[in-house]
Amino acid sequence: MDSPAAFDVKIESPGGEGYDMRTIDWRDDRIVAIDQTRLPHEVEFLEIDTVEDLIAAIRSLAIRGAPAIGVAGALGVALAARRHPEPAELRAAVDALRAARPTAVNLAWGVDRVRARLDAEGTEAALDEALAVLAEDVRCCRELSERGARWLVETVGPQVAVQTHCNAGALATVEWGTALGVVRSLQEHGALTHVYASETRPLLQGARLTVWELAQIGVPHTLVVDSAAASVLAQGRVDAVVVGADRITANGDVINKVGTYPLALAAARAGVPMVVAAPESTVDLATPSGADVHIEVRDPEEITALGAVALAPKGTGTLNYAFDVTPADLVTAIVTERRVILPAAGGRPDDPISRS
Amino acid sequence: MDSPAAFDVKIESPGGEGYDMRTIDWRDDRIVAIDQTRLPHEVEFLEIDTVEDLIAAIRSLAIRGAPAIGVAGALGVALAARRHPEPAELRAAVDALRAARPTAVNLAWGVDRVRARLDAEGTEAALDEALAVLAEDVRCCRELSERGARWLVETVGPQVAVQTHCNAGALATVEWGTALGVVRSLQEHGALTHVYASETRPLLQGARLTVWELAQIGVPHTLVVDSAAASVLAQGRVDAVVVGADRITANGDVINKVGTYPLALAAARAGVPMVVAAPESTVDLATPSGADVHIEVRDPEEITALGAVALAPKGTGTLNYAFDVTPADLVTAIVTERRVILPAAGGRPDDPISRS
Repeated sequence: MDSPAAFDVKIESPGGEGYDMRTIDWRDDRIVAIDQTRLPHEVEFLEIDTVEDLIAAIRSLAIRGAPAIGVAGALGVALAARRHPEPAELRAAVDALRAARPTAVNLAWGVDRVRARLDAEGTEAALDEALAVLAEDVRCCRELSERGARWLVETVGPQVAVQTHCNAGALATVEWGTALGVVRSLQEHGALTHVYASETRPLLQGARLTVWELAQIGVPHTLVVDSAAASVLAQGRVDAVVVGADRITANGDVINKVGTYPLALAAARAGVPMVVAAPESTVDLATPSGADVHIEVRDPEEITALGAVALAPKGTGTLNYAFDVTPADLVTAIVTERRVILPAAGGRPDDPISRS
Repeated sequence: MDSPAAFDVKIESPGGEGYDMRTIDWRDDRIVAIDQTRLPHEVEFLEIDTVEDLIAAIRSLAIRGAPAIGVAGALGVALAARRHPEPAELRAAVDALRAARPTAVNLAWGVDRVRARLDAEGTEAALDEALAVLAEDVRCCRELSERGARWLVETVGPQVAVQTHCNAGALATVEWGTALGVVRSLQEHGALTHVYASETRPLLQGARLTVWELAQIGVPHTLVVDSAAASVLAQGRVDAVVVGADRITANGDVINKVGTYPLALAAARAGVPMVVAAPESTVDLATPSGADVHIEVRDPEEITALGAVALAPKGTGTLNYAFDVTPADLVTAIVTERRVILPAAGGRPDDPISRS
């Protein structure tokens, strides 16, 4: 983020040209991932050979977005199995990977799924499983996006303006997106009018990543500061809020990027549906409610400086929550690849009928 | 904001040393004001000789804060009268000054008050009136701060932690502050535990100005991004939200820095009082409600860049509201130098009993 360089760069992905690249993939016995800390100024791909480098990429948010880090966890176990033949070393590497970030459930989910297969069937089966996780992410995103777009058109009408927050786009998944996947499906059906994106302090995923994606796919969009989103809602400019999630607990509480909760409050006040788009792998039935989730607190420097520019007096104390908890009663709909749950109307992710 | 220079600079104000300077004053036949665009990196005073320069200082937010720009309007008319002996020129200069920013009512109030005296009694009387406006700001801030502190202690208890937004401190007034004036009065009474300040995007008045003021006066404080304030409230970390105002309409709606409205939503959800501290000059009985107020929309570059650093793709469209409207039902108390109004409980600024 240091240079105000050209933004209209043409993306050259390892697999082809243009925006239709994969955010994360497995090539030549290693993980390839777009470096999201350098977007939108530069489009560069990391080639990740070791679990240590993968953990560093997840911690620095070079790889981010709950579904994408779920896939990173899955691929990471396959990578670990190839690099660490010694069982104790392998176990330590996998445990460290699983703990790289605490809040999104997808990381642990991806790690655990491939580790189980590894333990049962060995290294090659682990890679098969990791590649299956990757392929499922692509399919799940498409399916939940289509379901979400259909639900929105049925609920709010044939032309939909959307407010979103943070980045739950192609960059947060393997290639299609969750919240922005819903936006793209609306666009495919000619049902999208406009997207308002909030910038998402402190790391500006909205301004850097979502705006960039929306420009790539030709969606009319407007950037606002996070605290202006409530005014956009109060003025009736949008028909729905659509966001992703890092964890959805058994009661329907949603843990997502900090700023989601005040957006849900503003949506409720405006009578606008609050829609959460996420794969089933984000649903954590083992955790009863948001109060039971460890909310990651990140470094003060993310708030007090921006590159070389100081934004506040040095040494200022901060409380830099990466996420917040939106209570279930403020969540109109959770859309996954399998179902639509309506928490504000009493629906619960752990409802046996809805799970079937 | 370009240089991460030393922040612990000792302020040398024209009138003395340390923090007890006046933000705006009249000296040697001109206006002297601290340049708030350069804080906290540099403490520099502008010497303003012309109405054109005063308008530029108000537009660039070198002079900002509703009460301070009210005083600037008053002093500006006195300055105009001295510089423009020709009546048509004088009228044009005063009209331009009155329109420098549209949302805060204090600017028009200060201009109109001194203009009336100028028209009736001439140039020297206009200066007397402007200096009276300045002196009244000092007294009003002290009185409303004391009243606000007393109301808080009586309402929430003997130890108060506060969340504030933007900067309604000494820098927004002549010398004591409104919301931060309440904080200082709580501190004087030994009733203040902590202040959470939200950074206030896009221009970071919270991070740059409020944090700096809190450090100067030795108040324990924590900086959060705007959208994390809702989590601070949900966790029960604060006992009250205290903010300033740019305009308070007849029904009790409050127009203040963008971000105040979502903060009020979060305060209501948390059961925490939402307190607005402002002088009577901010109360605009001629305007029925917030829907009738012109909300200033500022340049996209305030959001898309920060100094030389690009934050979003160049040319990105924005909706850069400088203010938002908090509906009266979310405002627990409005504290002025004369009264406490309780809008959420049905109180109105235009209530004849409360006005008496």
